[in-house]
Parts: sequence; C-alpha cells; structure tokens
Amino acid sequence: MKLFIYSPLDESLRSFLRSALPASVQLVFRKELSGNALTEAFAEAEIIMGNPPVDWFAQIPPHLTFWQLDSAGFNQYQHLRLEAQVANMGDFYAKPCAETMVGGILAFYRGLPLLVKCQEQKRWLGGKIRPHLDLLSNKKIIILGAGSIGQAVKQMLEGFGCAVQMTARRNPQAQIHTFDALLETLPETDLVINTLPGGLDKYVSAAFFQAMKPGSLYASVGRGNTTDEQALIQALQSGKLAGAVLDVTEQEPLPETSPLWEMENVILTQHTGGGFKVEEEGKVQLFLRNLNKFLAGEPLENQINLAQGY
Amino acid sequence: MKLFIYSPLDESLRSFLRSALPASVQLVFRKELSGNALTEAFAEAEIIMGNPPVDWFAQIPPHLTFWQLDSAGFNQYQHLRLEAQVANMGDFYAKPCAETMVGGILAFYRGLPLLVKCQEQKRWLGGKIRPHLDLLSNKKIIILGAGSIGQAVKQMLEGFGCAVQMTARRNPQAQIHTFDALLETLPETDLVINTLPGGLDKYVSAAFFQAMKPGSLYASVGRGNTTDEQALIQALQSGKLAGAVLDVTEQEPLPETSPLWEMENVILTQHTGGGFKVEEEGKVQLFLRNLNKFLAGEPLENQINLAQGY
Repeated sequence: MKLFIYSPLDESLRSFLRSALPASVQLVFRKELSGNALTEAFAEAEIIMGNPPVDWFAQIPPHLTFWQLDSAGFNQYQHLRLEAQVANMGDFYAKPCAETMVGGILAFYRGLPLLVKCQEQKRWLGGKIRPHLDLLSNKKIIILGAGSIGQAVKQMLEGFGCAVQMTARRNPQAQIHTFDALLETLPETDLVINTLPGGLDKYVSAAFFQAMKPGSLYASVGRGNTTDEQALIQALQSGKLAGAVLDVTEQEPLPETSPLWEMENVILTQHTGGGFKVEEEGKVQLFLRNLNKFLAGEPLENQINLAQGY
Repeated sequence: MKLFIYSPLDESLRSFLRSALPASVQLVFRKELSGNALTEAFAEAEIIMGNPPVDWFAQIPPHLTFWQLDSAGFNQYQHLRLEAQVANMGDFYAKPCAETMVGGILAFYRGLPLLVKCQEQKRWLGGKIRPHLDLLSNKKIIILGAGSIGQAVKQMLEGFGCAVQMTARRNPQAQIHTFDALLETLPETDLVINTLPGGLDKYVSAAFFQAMKPGSLYASVGRGNTTDEQALIQALQSGKLAGAVLDVTEQEPLPETSPLWEMENVILTQHTGGGFKVEEEGKVQLFLRNLNKFLAGEPLENQINLAQGY
C-alpha cells in the first residue's frame, strides 16, 4: 500500500508515523522528495494525506482510494470527480479559530494593542485609557455562517450575555437566511463576525458595510475572498466602522503596501486562528484513525463529498 | 443640603448633576476648590460622592449622613466608625474587570502581543506563530475570590468548556474553602485568576507559586497587595510559570525598574480593568438613584457596613 504524505510534518512526526504503520506500507513524504521522484510518488499514491496544489490533480492518481485533507475548507478541489473516499478536518480548527476571534474582539474593546505598545515603551497610561474602552457584554452580534467555527464562536459568546444571530441559507440553526434580511438587521448590530467559506466571493460588499451601524466592529476568520477588502478599507478610513479584527486578508502574506498594517483600530492575527501547540500531532492522529476506519471498511470521521461544497 | 463631590467629574457631568438637583441643594466640587475653601467644604458636607483620601477622615464631617463611594473596594476606610449610610459601587466594575481578564488571558494563549508587535513592523510571521499558541478551551481553572468579579469571570468562562472552581472562606458558591485545600488543587490547575480584595496581603505567596503546575498561567485583577510580587517575578524568571496577565501591581504606576515591563510572557493592563466609555456617567447615575432613595428613606443600592470589609 502506497501512502503519500503531502502535509509538511517535522522529523519527529514522520518518525512517529513510520513507527505507527506496518512495514508493508510504503510511506513517502513530499518533504523528502523532489523532481521526478515526487511526481511519480504522487501518481502512484493509493492514499494521500494533506492538500497538494489543485493543479496536481489534472491527472488524478489512478489508484487513489482514500484522501485525508489537512484543512476544513476544500473549495479549491470542488470540481474534482474522484472515486476515492475523502475526509476533511471537520471542526478540528473550530475552537482555535473561535478563540482567536473572541480574543481579538475582547482585545479591541479592552484596548490591548495600545497597552502592549505602552508596555514596550515602559509607559504607564493607566486611567487615561479607561474612557476609551468598550464592553463585549450585551452586544448585538451577527455571525456570518453557521458552520463549526460559527457555532464555536456563538458558544463562547454565551457567557457575555450577547444577543447572537447566525446566518445561513438553509441551516436551521441560523436565524437569518437571506442577504436582504441580513441588510435589514445590520443597522441594529454592534458586531459582525465573518466565518464564511470561500464560495461566497466578496459577500461582505460595499453595500454590506453601507448598511452596518455607525461605530460598529467587523471581525473575520472566514476566507479572505469573502470580504471586499477595498470596501472594508474605505469603511475604516471614513470612520463608519469603529475597527476590524482580521485573521484573514485577500492576499496572504498581506502586502506591505496595504493600509491595514498602519490602522490603529485594526488587529491583524495573520491567519494564526487555527493554530495551537499540538496541531500537527492532532492532524496525524486523525489521519491514523481514519486510515484504520478506511481499511476496516467503516465510515470515516468528517467524510465529505467534494461536489457538495463545504 | 450640602453635597460634596470628590469624584473628578468633567465639566459636562458637573453641569448634568447641577441640572438634575433642585436649586436648594448646595453642590460643591473638589475640582473647583482648593486650600481653605476645600477643607471647609469637606467639613460641612452632609453628603459625599467619591473617595477622599482616608486621612481627611481624621475629623469626620459632623453632619455627614450619606456617602456614595465610587469604588467597589473600601479596605482603606474599614477602621472608620460613621453614623452615615454608606454605599459602594457593588458589581458596577465586575463585567469590565472580568472582560479585561478573559481578554488578557485569550490574548496570552493566542499570541496577540507578538502579533501586535509584528503589525507595528509590518512583519508577517503567520504560520510560524501557530505552534506556539495554546487554547483556553477545556482548561482547569481556579478563581481566587467568589465576589462579583469572580462570578462574572466564571460566567464568561462557561462558553469555553473550562472546569472552574472558586475559592472563598464561607461563600457557598465557592468549592474551595481553605488555603490547604487550595494548595492541594494547584498542581492540577492550568490557570489561576486572582480577584481578591485588599484584606489578604500577599495571599498569593512563594508557597502558592511553588505549588502551581509547571507551565501554568497566573492572572490578577484583585488588589495588587494580594500577590507577593517578588515571588511572582521569581516564578516567571525561573520558567515555573508560562506567563502572567496583570491588571494590578503592588505599586501603580509600575516603577520603571520593575522587571515585569520587559517580560515577553507578561501582559500588563495597567489597572484599566474597570474602565469603560460610560463609566463616569454610570457613577453619577448610581449616585442620583441612591440620593433619591436616601432622601425617601428607602434602602440604598449596594449599601455597606464599613466595619464588615468587602
């Protein structure tokens, strides 16, 4: 059995994976190959772990039977027609992403970026900062998307007494189901949190920012392309928005020329949202669990149908 | 009736207070007086709003009947024996303090101080930060103190699936009632949040830090004197603790010579915890509500007995 590991695992995790699999398994790591050897290994793969560039699938490996993605999103692969069983990371990143969102939002309201800068300069501002602080408690909030990240954010907000609504076209856990209904609710909303997948290009548009409540806050851990970034920058520059907490941007790394870098009321968390100490170990563990299930003919965790979207 | 306002209200709030009270009330503001006029005004006060220095009470104003503190704590006044009715701010600061704590703790786990510094330098670290991040979700937490701040923190932590215990000698909402029981629980605890009032000098001692779990986090929004700051600094320097989130310090402003300023794993929120935009308005509103109750002979909001402590 030929396993092709695209995920960039470090040496200790590669050793762990080698020791965890029977010797009959032929295990190859992208990190240890290049040139023709790499092309051949991919072409011969029966099992893949990780997210190879989508153009590699112009020729789908003919013996591929099981593919474990190491992301939750899989928008880039949706046009592929595979015989293989495919699984994604499900809600593996939901809590880390939600914590970075809620942490970034609290940091915004409680003035943490300024406090961090003061600490660097050993400068005590103390009481002078207090009149500029705001509270998350009791805010009216809309979460765009009702998937695992949106639900994790909602759960974390419960202890703050916020009035939270989620949006989704069909998901019954959402309260808002159309863009028009959303636009009607925005003028009463203090905080919008975007957790949308990549299929909804520029969903958060100029008209969206136009409808938002003056002085409200925008936060995003959805895909970068779901926000019209020029419209966001204008809404920040005009003073329409109080600020933004962005884990994602249209282009990553964010270009040095982006005005977002220098805005005092913008917090950039640099797509670290999904990260945590044992992230890579967790990926390997899910892969091994799903590999065993696949070999035993049992249903996979987080099995997906590429054609259905996320 | 002579009202003496010690709270440093700005001009617009002083005007508001003037307009809200009948003309028969003689209203004087500390901010507008000095020298003998100030001493006399205090001595003649029948009603006080705010926290005058405790040594002013060496001679208690003989006609004082109602005193509205503008703090929650009143440790410094506990030795005073007054005939007057006294009220404090109750849980007015509980949610702001709790939000600064939870925000600071999330900022620590999710790497926000480093991300803020990167943003200042237009430096994209992105994925390199991810393996250093941790999660608040599912942590084992002890909150020192079960008063209004401790309870607000506990409520906010509920959405994160944390196992939270509170400490208090007698409060039935607490699970830990003795220092010995606390020391036994510390080795299993990921995060300690101090919300103690000032009466417990150096309660968080060298022995306390000694008992804490290696790699755990210490956070404090309690009074600065309740932490043995030298012992804390040693626990940070030795690597025993992963870090600290401190809204309070023994001395404020924190002296420039304190090593806490330069520690990468310490977040200093500079006693901004209780602050929020409408803090001063909120104080004036509570004062007016309580003044009306006092004049009508009704029970005050947050009435206290100085001799009982906080």
